[in-house]
Amino acid sequence: MFVSLMLLNGESCPSEGTEAFCAYNPLTGKALTNWYPVSPWSEVEFAIKSAARAFEKVKTWPGERFAEFLDAYATEIEDRADRLVEAAHEETGYPVSPRLKDVELPRTTNQLRLAANAARTGSWKRPIIDTASNIRSEFGSLGPVVVFGPNNFPFAFNGISGGDFAAAIAAGNPVIAKAHPSHPTTTAIFAEAALAALEKTSMPAGFVQLIFQMDYEDGEKLVSHPLIGATAFTGSRHGGLVLKAAADKAGKPIYLELSSINPIFILEGALAERGDALADEFVVSCLMGTGQFCTNPGMVILPKSKLAEEFVQKVTEKFHNAPAGALLAENVKSNFLSGIKQLQQAGAELLTGGGVAEGEGYRCQNTLFKVSGSEFLSNAERLQAEAFGNESLLVIADDVKQMVEIAAALEGNLTGCLYTETTGKDDAVYDQIAPVLRQKVGRLLNDKMPTGVAVVPSMNHGGPYPSTGHPGFTSVGIPASITRFAMLQCYDNVRPHRLPSALQDKNPTGEMWRLVDGNWTQADVGK
Amino acid sequence: MFVSLMLLNGESCPSEGTEAFCAYNPLTGKALTNWYPVSPWSEVEFAIKSAARAFEKVKTWPGERFAEFLDAYATEIEDRADRLVEAAHEETGYPVSPRLKDVELPRTTNQLRLAANAARTGSWKRPIIDTASNIRSEFGSLGPVVVFGPNNFPFAFNGISGGDFAAAIAAGNPVIAKAHPSHPTTTAIFAEAALAALEKTSMPAGFVQLIFQMDYEDGEKLVSHPLIGATAFTGSRHGGLVLKAAADKAGKPIYLELSSINPIFILEGALAERGDALADEFVVSCLMGTGQFCTNPGMVILPKSKLAEEFVQKVTEKFHNAPAGALLAENVKSNFLSGIKQLQQAGAELLTGGGVAEGEGYRCQNTLFKVSGSEFLSNAERLQAEAFGNESLLVIADDVKQMVEIAAALEGNLTGCLYTETTGKDDAVYDQIAPVLRQKVGRLLNDKMPTGVAVVPSMNHGGPYPSTGHPGFTSVGIPASITRFAMLQCYDNVRPHRLPSALQDKNPTGEMWRLVDGNWTQADVGK
Repeated sequence: MFVSLMLLNGESCPSEGTEAFCAYNPLTGKALTNWYPVSPWSEVEFAIKSAARAFEKVKTWPGERFAEFLDAYATEIEDRADRLVEAAHEETGYPVSPRLKDVELPRTTNQLRLAANAARTGSWKRPIIDTASNIRSEFGSLGPVVVFGPNNFPFAFNGISGGDFAAAIAAGNPVIAKAHPSHPTTTAIFAEAALAALEKTSMPAGFVQLIFQMDYEDGEKLVSHPLIGATAFTGSRHGGLVLKAAADKAGKPIYLELSSINPIFILEGALAERGDALADEFVVSCLMGTGQFCTNPGMVILPKSKLAEEFVQKVTEKFHNAPAGALLAENVKSNFLSGIKQLQQAGAELLTGGGVAEGEGYRCQNTLFKVSGSEFLSNAERLQAEAFGNESLLVIADDVKQMVEIAAALEGNLTGCLYTETTGKDDAVYDQIAPVLRQKVGRLLNDKMPTGVAVVPSMNHGGPYPSTGHPGFTSVGIPASITRFAMLQCYDNVRPHRLPSALQDKNPTGEMWRLVDGNWTQADVGK
Repeated sequence: MFVSLMLLNGESCPSEGTEAFCAYNPLTGKALTNWYPVSPWSEVEFAIKSAARAFEKVKTWPGERFAEFLDAYATEIEDRADRLVEAAHEETGYPVSPRLKDVELPRTTNQLRLAANAARTGSWKRPIIDTASNIRSEFGSLGPVVVFGPNNFPFAFNGISGGDFAAAIAAGNPVIAKAHPSHPTTTAIFAEAALAALEKTSMPAGFVQLIFQMDYEDGEKLVSHPLIGATAFTGSRHGGLVLKAAADKAGKPIYLELSSINPIFILEGALAERGDALADEFVVSCLMGTGQFCTNPGMVILPKSKLAEEFVQKVTEKFHNAPAGALLAENVKSNFLSGIKQLQQAGAELLTGGGVAEGEGYRCQNTLFKVSGSEFLSNAERLQAEAFGNESLLVIADDVKQMVEIAAALEGNLTGCLYTETTGKDDAVYDQIAPVLRQKVGRLLNDKMPTGVAVVPSMNHGGPYPSTGHPGFTSVGIPASITRFAMLQCYDNVRPHRLPSALQDKNPTGEMWRLVDGNWTQADVGK
């Protein structure tokens, strides 16, 4: 077997590790041909030191340099689009088109270019200048950032190409990317593109590095290492919380995106007005990508009524009749099966699905559960456990009061949604549920499924614990996602020529927004 | 003995606890007459539930309501200025004038009014509106906040009146204040003023509460309680890290301000140009308030030279000749003595002081240490231990290279300072040391001691771990200090009349700064 190369200290290089792994095609369950190394701690430590040396070089560079790299990288990715799409299709089972080729890859290069633009303009640094006291501050780069990517977005959240990566680089930090083991070949092609872009834009060795796999204990050592600035992790709750404990103990920032069931409240008027359409909309959103979205709607709360019964029946039929998509990996399948077993044990009534589906690869039946509002409230914690995949739980509440109680019993989630009648008939009920749901979710939606995540400044792809580790941060949305990887740097009475360019009287880019004496402006100080 | 009243659920009330404590006059060491209760867990829990009920009421209120309370509170404090100053003088030993009456109390009411203004204007919410996608987001209130105040600022950092308190209230959160046990009477007078302001502005019971003391274990339960939004703590490293561990485990934000030794680099040219003046400036800053400032200069790094020897001699004489001020409490004194013992054991040479001083109360001699740069580097961790009080360590570096190494060996600090010759003779050396020091400190100063902390938007009273728990946050400086106690709340496709006022098309205050389609503006959307 040929064991593939990592990207370490500016070079494609072999591992000295003695273990290796391969990925599997989810559509067939067959092993893929490439093998990838599990790095020993010595290699992880080598990457950390190389990243720290790179940081010493780049920490005073202007944003333009990071922008050049990000733009060049986007182009190198586009040059390899066909190979990336082919590899990702093989490793994830996602359709080539539209998902991989027409949606996720363009989103990924777009994110890199938006991050480049933010690095160039510099407004993400949020410069504040108080002229009377001559105190000035900005967000500055933090140091090497570790990015753990998840299994479900091989491009847009990949540790070496996704949103966390782009944000960490835009802030001027070297990145050590940890590949997700279910799509290593896709990740290796990104590393090749990154290396080309690093060379073309004369970035130091160690500015972007890739490690395919390491032991769990080494992951904990990595995120808590003195030379590491911060970590971003998207993935399972268990894995994330283990890393969080290690990073917290060392006083290192760690940004987590963990599980979320994304509750949907459908109010009575909406159900009467457009119940059929809502059933369609929900099923499409819930089964898209075999339900493997961070913002997949895993729970629907409906008021008890004949209409709700009809909704349940329609959704059950649609779940039953829709083909079962492939799950991303063997362990996703086994976790899914154990998750739905736990929901059953917690009292959820199985409406359809519940087992392995026919066909090659990792497939489980589209699975739908139902519980009453009282049952949910009596066992809320267990009934909120995420079964990552093509599953959802319908909760039939006795009345509005119980819907409010259900909202209050929710854990922190990325999103929460309310569907209401268009002319306002549900407004009084909305006003009871929404304020409770608001405190439980990062993004509150109206009349829209949560699966789309627009890459705009106002986006919050974050939420209260345990959906993330901190309710004030988002992993999508520039510039907010960038400031996670920065430290607040204040300059008190510092001589003008020694100030970083963003804090000098002259606006260095002419486009940078700065808070000068309490007012946001793009002008020079004193103008 | 009469055990004083707490402020719980809108009422002054007695404790059911069986333990009580009193404070001591630091100038005499004598017990003061009032006794204060140690609350059992049942009372802490009662406060939490009361705060949570208050939050349910206020969470949709406009900022104006919180501003009215903050303004009214500032006035109530001013009405009690004489009593507050008298009590604080008795409990801290700080001079009535200028320290307590003319500096700290006006700073405190100013902070409350600045926070009121921020709550009123609403720019702290950082509203972002993207019209094409109709996604809008803002920072919203988080839930009850616990504030632990330190011993060294009885007014400006008091749990029930200081900067953290003001920021948490401005963000619309109820506060549970934990008094510092060395100044409970001062704190009780604040509680009386707060209660009067709560009543005058019709705030709900439980919006501001005060507990004097609780067991350590109950403190951990408090900061990790499901109904608590976040915690702010200013105090010792040990106590702070115990609370941090509990809060981290529960996924609750905690903002810490811990120890800091605030290194000062004096370069050769500055020493030649104005060594005498610098010696004066340093001694005044270091011994002010008996050295009990968060930003007290606890370490000075000088290049080896005859001038440095003269500086050392001058400072030693001044330390020796200056009167020894009182430390805040018996445990501050004992910690100080044990801290200087540890510095000696770590190899620091005692130049003057080192023991208990004559006179009544908690007094230790002004204490100065010296080590060579090599000695410091060989034992950097132990030699950076803070001895909170009137002590400093002079480090004599062999050369510029060693000064850079010393900067690199520093832990995270709140501040770091470089003194250089005025016409630029030290600039080349500055350029070697400053980039290294920059990453170690929250606030970088030139030619200025760090003990002054201006309350302006650009201030960073924060820094890398272990000076605080996160390098991106500041506890002083509005609006940044306020957003710590907020959650990011996004509205996706939400109907216009349901949006919070800050995110509606019309600018609700006319003065609120909002990021609309990438541009900061005070205008209405579409105007």
